[in-house]
Amino acid sequence: MKEAKISPSVVRRLPIYLRHVQDLLDAGIDTVSSKEMGAKLDLNPAQIRKDLAYFGEFGRKGVGYEVEYLARKLEQILHLDQQIRVALVGVGHLGMALSNYTRFQNERITIAGLYDQDPKKMNMQVGKLRVKPLLKIEEDAKTIGFQIGIIAVPAFSAQEVCDVMIRCGIRVILNFAPSSLKVPANIHVRSTDMTTELQSLAYYISE
Amino acid sequence: MKEAKISPSVVRRLPIYLRHVQDLLDAGIDTVSSKEMGAKLDLNPAQIRKDLAYFGEFGRKGVGYEVEYLARKLEQILHLDQQIRVALVGVGHLGMALSNYTRFQNERITIAGLYDQDPKKMNMQVGKLRVKPLLKIEEDAKTIGFQIGIIAVPAFSAQEVCDVMIRCGIRVILNFAPSSLKVPANIHVRSTDMTTELQSLAYYISE
Repeated sequence: MKEAKISPSVVRRLPIYLRHVQDLLDAGIDTVSSKEMGAKLDLNPAQIRKDLAYFGEFGRKGVGYEVEYLARKLEQILHLDQQIRVALVGVGHLGMALSNYTRFQNERITIAGLYDQDPKKMNMQVGKLRVKPLLKIEEDAKTIGFQIGIIAVPAFSAQEVCDVMIRCGIRVILNFAPSSLKVPANIHVRSTDMTTELQSLAYYISE
Repeated sequence: MKEAKISPSVVRRLPIYLRHVQDLLDAGIDTVSSKEMGAKLDLNPAQIRKDLAYFGEFGRKGVGYEVEYLARKLEQILHLDQQIRVALVGVGHLGMALSNYTRFQNERITIAGLYDQDPKKMNMQVGKLRVKPLLKIEEDAKTIGFQIGIIAVPAFSAQEVCDVMIRCGIRVILNFAPSSLKVPANIHVRSTDMTTELQSLAYYISE
């Protein structure tokens, strides 16, 4: 099932809903209203109902959402009911931070390959993995089957890494390099650039 | 001038517009149409016109936007016509990555204080700064005047760091810890959590 075009901002709220209902599930809570969710997540209940309605009729008037069903459904929608293997290229500080994050946070999304072009980093141990040369990624892709690629290299080599990832069959890319990437229409890239992030926050500084 | 309530997604596009017009300026280009910008930035021209119209009448029909004026105006709106000083708490891999990023990318936004609670990191040199104990931040805030705080500590100490920042007069916070923070209504927090980011990207994996 692939739904009609859902806006990226809706998609970005789904993991937040998922985390919340997982917490409720852990706490033994069976049902939750959009109002309760809204209060907890600091979101408009109408927004929550609208977001979730994209994916089917989850809630019941006066009862709310069945927590377990909603959790399972959100996992499905986000493909988190399967194992997701990530290839990470660029094992600098950012790459290291990302490896630590995902290693501890979520067992469904695993970094399954670490690559770098710096000879000094070859064979460096990070968690259960060893850093390999970028050239190895194509070979690994065949056996491991990466679904997501993370680009954590400097801007000047980001496009090259991106092209290699696409050749490996990776169609979803998270780009941390401060450069925009040229990709075919069937590839989904999300660029998150710390500078842009900080600059947009500067808007909220009061004069 | 503070404008009517602008949605966060509009604000987050402003630095992208700014970077683009700065590039045009460097290339000696005087005017640009929303259509040209749209093609370059992969955005709908109508969206660009709408976004910019929030802040005044920039464009002229048939001529487009004056690049220099638009650049200067966007800098003003984002407060990037002034020096912005950032306090960064948490000098692990992520903190190090952030220090490197902003040090090289943008002279207007400077990390002006680095703090950590780990005794092993005290006095560690990062660029021009030395890591100080978190306790020092309140004293420094008085002399340096931080406008933005970045939280790059583990989840369990994020709220504590956040509270300290608010006591220092910091009202804009970028939170990388995977935990939601409780703050008064006049504080602007943006949380970017790598796990949520990856989970929402998993939506785009095709079955």
